[in-house]
Amino acid sequence: MTKGQEKRMIVAFRHIGIVHSPLKKKQDVSPERYRGKSGFSNVQGELEIYPEYGKGLQDTEGFSHLIVLFHFHRSKESSLLAHPPFESGERGVFATRSPNRPNAIGMTVVTLIKKEGNRLFVSGLDILDGTPILDLKPYTSRDIHPDAQFGWIAQNPGLP
Amino acid sequence: MTKGQEKRMIVAFRHIGIVHSPLKKKQDVSPERYRGKSGFSNVQGELEIYPEYGKGLQDTEGFSHLIVLFHFHRSKESSLLAHPPFESGERGVFATRSPNRPNAIGMTVVTLIKKEGNRLFVSGLDILDGTPILDLKPYTSRDIHPDAQFGWIAQNPGLP
Repeated sequence: MTKGQEKRMIVAFRHIGIVHSPLKKKQDVSPERYRGKSGFSNVQGELEIYPEYGKGLQDTEGFSHLIVLFHFHRSKESSLLAHPPFESGERGVFATRSPNRPNAIGMTVVTLIKKEGNRLFVSGLDILDGTPILDLKPYTSRDIHPDAQFGWIAQNPGLP
Repeated sequence: MTKGQEKRMIVAFRHIGIVHSPLKKKQDVSPERYRGKSGFSNVQGELEIYPEYGKGLQDTEGFSHLIVLFHFHRSKESSLLAHPPFESGERGVFATRSPNRPNAIGMTVVTLIKKEGNRLFVSGLDILDGTPILDLKPYTSRDIHPDAQFGWIAQNPGLP
């Protein structure tokens, strides 16, 4: 931890569910797989929401895409710089999606296939099996920015 | 809290910065303002990242859009159902972006105007002044889903 970080306010969140995924090892979400937008589009799995939160899943069925916020629970360190794949140098961590960040929160958008009780069957999953879920949100028109520009990522031949 | 929720694992995160916004009161982010995608596109403000995290902002400059994860610090309650504006009934909270959710984490995509030291000047801000920031991530091609369908929101005449 860098000097000064320890004085900041802490907020606590609870795990609300768990990811069931065919991606079992860190190598299964290796950066190489992110080459090309289709890298994880065929990966299917389940978002299991714990029963006491199940009522909150009502009305998710109509959405084709959901935002998943999760805990990078296997992240062992926090760093302000990350060394992305296929890059010669380091990049600021807030310009990357590295799991080794000050707050180990991940965010990904998945495609909803179907809902069965407290389980959502999804595809486009790039999350490790056993990952704790912190929140689900509907993906809406305000999240679509087709004109976006991608900084250093656009210059990197190996990344989408 | 619903029975069973208290037994779930807790994870703690630190505030890494604070939002400076012209939106001072809850009424300033009233649901009515979300009518039409342009509701907040002209709202400008600053994301101040605390100095000890500043190094992590390197390389954000090249991105036109950033994902902001923040703490809904003025959320007073958690509910599994939300009553969205212009809706006759309640919806499951995970099918809404309500601040009153089991984990009070907000997510929004902003447009980056410029970076000055530890401050990012942004537009498209729909976050209240004084809101604590938990994370910043680059918005990438994997976050764009132009074919998405928006469930109950698409049926609601008042929402985008």
